Amino acid sequence: MPKQKPTLFTSLSPALLQLYDVSNSVVVIIDVLRATSTIATALFNGAKAVIPVDSINRCIELGKQLDGITAGERDGKIADGLKYGNSPFEYPGEFIEGKTLVFTTTNGTRLLQMALDKGAKEIITGSFPNYSAVCDYLLQKNQNVILGCAAWKDRVNIEDMLFAGAVISKVKKAFTINCDSSHLAETIYKKGKKDLFGFMKKNNASHYHRLMGFGLEKDIRYCLTADVANVLPFYENGKLILK
Amino acid sequence: MPKQKPTLFTSLSPALLQLYDVSNSVVVIIDVLRATSTIATALFNGAKAVIPVDSINRCIELGKQLDGITAGERDGKIADGLKYGNSPFEYPGEFIEGKTLVFTTTNGTRLLQMALDKGAKEIITGSFPNYSAVCDYLLQKNQNVILGCAAWKDRVNIEDMLFAGAVISKVKKAFTINCDSSHLAETIYKKGKKDLFGFMKKNNASHYHRLMGFGLEKDIRYCLTADVANVLPFYENGKLILK
Repeated sequence: MPKQKPTLFTSLSPALLQLYDVSNSVVVIIDVLRATSTIATALFNGAKAVIPVDSINRCIELGKQLDGITAGERDGKIADGLKYGNSPFEYPGEFIEGKTLVFTTTNGTRLLQMALDKGAKEIITGSFPNYSAVCDYLLQKNQNVILGCAAWKDRVNIEDMLFAGAVISKVKKAFTINCDSSHLAETIYKKGKKDLFGFMKKNNASHYHRLMGFGLEKDIRYCLTADVANVLPFYENGKLILK
Repeated sequence: MPKQKPTLFTSLSPALLQLYDVSNSVVVIIDVLRATSTIATALFNGAKAVIPVDSINRCIELGKQLDGITAGERDGKIADGLKYGNSPFEYPGEFIEGKTLVFTTTNGTRLLQMALDKGAKEIITGSFPNYSAVCDYLLQKNQNVILGCAAWKDRVNIEDMLFAGAVISKVKKAFTINCDSSHLAETIYKKGKKDLFGFMKKNNASHYHRLMGFGLEKDIRYCLTADVANVLPFYENGKLILK
């Protein structure tokens, strides 16, 4: 009898995560604009670790204790009391190498905390900048997977679904996928993959408008580019690190 | 100054309904396979009213009190203790005309109850069989709209999203739509509209497989057909009726 394939599910919002058994799965935290893109970039550029925290106060406190860089956003802007924001361009090698980034965001770090609280077997972070690293790992690991979209304040968003679909299109043969959200994500990705930026624009993605309003087209374009920071952040002992 | 257009949002799962202000909106309950298709059909065929209830016991109790027909499903099959199921073909005119149907389903009637509990301004039900009636009403009413997908045990499904997209494609010019779920739904519908049944099959829709497994291809095809029971069920005083 052939060995059964592991399962893959997509959770389109943190409010749906409870529907899936994270305790038996590798959970991929997806916050394309911009938390997980920035996490991959900081680590790719030599950060020692990224410590995701769910509150601004905790970020400031931990930053002091660890002599780390405090960063994060609320509603897409640098949060009051923190020094840096959520743009991958804030973390070039000459700045971030060897340093610890203490990081809080509206959606991505919150979802990571939820997955942790629910006892996720393993947590990694995914984004277009580390697309291949994520796919290669999931294929090699051969365990159940939950693609967890961070969304925007629990509302489903286009860019996280696009990334989930991109992963599915590459790994699907290795998994049993009985999950409409996954099939929808793949269909959306296939439709948009030739020009992800154009697809976001054409579909009036709310995050496209929000970031364009802040003059951040460069960030959007970078965060939709595959493999420009192709490392795999693992969550271990409270930190995202490379292994 | 031009008058501002009303808003339209799509809630892809009952677990997301809390994100939207139902108290200020017309809520369209969408459970394509099969609750809202069957509700439209029963009323189109002359049922006096359909009374949606959220438990089997309540269904039986109310059926006795009102001398109504008790019907409903759990997990896609006729629920124990009830006489009829969730298939539109069970309710031809010669059977249902003039009668009251007391009806409970896994997802659709539960979502309706949630919208009611949250104080929805107005509740109607939508499905492909009453597609034009829904669109015409929303355009005429010119108020905020929430398209509420019943999904499957809170998991997003393809067919409800397809119907939401179908409505959006027809009414979007009359609404302000700042909602990724709505834009995704429209894109999915545009992709699938030429052959909705084929799209469900190709995308491995979980409900497609579930109902095909019960030999219900005929039901799926009917429930994906526009305007074959083109009436508008309104929820008033505990009943779905035509006005």
